[in-house]
Amino acid sequence: MRSNLPDILTFLSATVPELAFINGIFLPIEQAFVSVEDRGFQFADAVYEVMVTYGGTPFRIEKHLNRLQASLDALGIVYNVEAEQVAALVADGIRRAGFTETLVYLQISRGVASRRHEFPEVSCPTVVMTFKECHRLPVRMYEHGVRIITRPDLRWKRCNIKTVSLLPNVLAKQQASQESAFEVLLIDSEGRVTEGSSTSSFLVVDGVVKTTPLGPSILAGITREVVIEIAYNLNMRFREESSLLQDYFEADEVFLVGTATEIVPVIEIDGNTIGNGVAGPMTRRLRGSFSKLVKS
Amino acid sequence: MRSNLPDILTFLSATVPELAFINGIFLPIEQAFVSVEDRGFQFADAVYEVMVTYGGTPFRIEKHLNRLQASLDALGIVYNVEAEQVAALVADGIRRAGFTETLVYLQISRGVASRRHEFPEVSCPTVVMTFKECHRLPVRMYEHGVRIITRPDLRWKRCNIKTVSLLPNVLAKQQASQESAFEVLLIDSEGRVTEGSSTSSFLVVDGVVKTTPLGPSILAGITREVVIEIAYNLNMRFREESSLLQDYFEADEVFLVGTATEIVPVIEIDGNTIGNGVAGPMTRRLRGSFSKLVKS
Repeated sequence: MRSNLPDILTFLSATVPELAFINGIFLPIEQAFVSVEDRGFQFADAVYEVMVTYGGTPFRIEKHLNRLQASLDALGIVYNVEAEQVAALVADGIRRAGFTETLVYLQISRGVASRRHEFPEVSCPTVVMTFKECHRLPVRMYEHGVRIITRPDLRWKRCNIKTVSLLPNVLAKQQASQESAFEVLLIDSEGRVTEGSSTSSFLVVDGVVKTTPLGPSILAGITREVVIEIAYNLNMRFREESSLLQDYFEADEVFLVGTATEIVPVIEIDGNTIGNGVAGPMTRRLRGSFSKLVKS
Repeated sequence: MRSNLPDILTFLSATVPELAFINGIFLPIEQAFVSVEDRGFQFADAVYEVMVTYGGTPFRIEKHLNRLQASLDALGIVYNVEAEQVAALVADGIRRAGFTETLVYLQISRGVASRRHEFPEVSCPTVVMTFKECHRLPVRMYEHGVRIITRPDLRWKRCNIKTVSLLPNVLAKQQASQESAFEVLLIDSEGRVTEGSSTSSFLVVDGVVKTTPLGPSILAGITREVVIEIAYNLNMRFREESSLLQDYFEADEVFLVGTATEIVPVIEIDGNTIGNGVAGPMTRRLRGSFSKLVKS
């Protein structure tokens, strides 16, 4: 009788559940639940981070956890990321999940309480993580660039806090999806570009790399910061400066950056070709250095 | 041996769990959970309603369910409130919960899906209800009025959709709580009052009752609509008109309305006494008619 072991292993491998973590316990994601009275579910009263690994190590985890702590502090959710050893929990989850490269999602809500708007007097934050296989974008997107569209920025006035209040981002991204576009560039009431619905946006004008200045209208993106570092190291000229949508239309190059997105060239916005309609030279240099950085 | 039955009944009654409903099943609220990948938890991608009963019957349920359907439609969540017989489910829950008067919370999210911003191709909305004992506000608040404070309106630009994207409302209400105020009046970037963090706001100036006109900056409150009906029936003059915070400071009367709040007089805003610092005559007449209406 021929052994079925390899078949079984293949079967098991295909059905190994994605991993989750809730308040101290690792379990298959299908078994991971939160109370209907979790304030993350009823009030969007929660913050989050998304991390990816390179060579099995989460990239810039200390930056992500610092930002997570800043988000928690901004909302008055009492939780100490360092004291709770979140970095070790993330590493543990990555190891247990066993993927070659892992996409880590980490959300902390204010916890479970009988529904009232104000903070509960007593509550214990709910800590949720999921660990999934990390799939990078298709190489053709990096090589040939992507098409994007624009929409008014409908979000609240504290986008610097990374909360799960993501409904406007969801609605924007859905419009991109319906128009087969990669992303939506969000435009404020004065015609200025803030950022993408889940990315930071950059443009290159006359050899100068520019992006929206930090402030309450955008997230302080980790990849945004990495790209600025790389631009300095490559002796590129860089300015944090607000730009109008028209500036993007007339730019030599436009690109989007993000943790899962990395650095992707934009070749068309609302049907208008950007630059020569191909991935620009500055974008390609930045991406080349980024690839080296994450490999090191 | 003396029977312990009455004691046991008292004990059971005190510990009868509040009731919940999830996707077709009634169960104690402590056992009611949703997936960590429910889009209500990860994206605030959900809508809700709060209803109260008078004499055991939910007040204006048809208005609440119409608004719920409008919210679902606005977000493209495919769910038919009438076809799913939600009114009958609410009535069933109220009966099963067995409270004299019931506070009904009803939330519908886009459902469970692997985390991506855009709508999932396939998902089944998550329907959650909770049924709790309805406690009205203390009578002294209606008789003597309440103190409130103001804060900038930080919310997104589609407040006419009743979504669980409530974090700005939560942060505002928490500030009220910290300052022992009843509510926060939200002020837009041009100094106009939009509404309270969980109530609609009215003012009376020279015998005219006024409130913010419907539009994307406020919720179309059910109690707001009831109050307007009552004002007409009482031959009061009424205008939907934007007002500045200064207009509220100088008003003869100010009051807040909401499903759980009913109609509560405001006697102080940011430390400024409103009118004579007591519940005003128009507010009291409106409240009198409201009380008769809900009793009928």
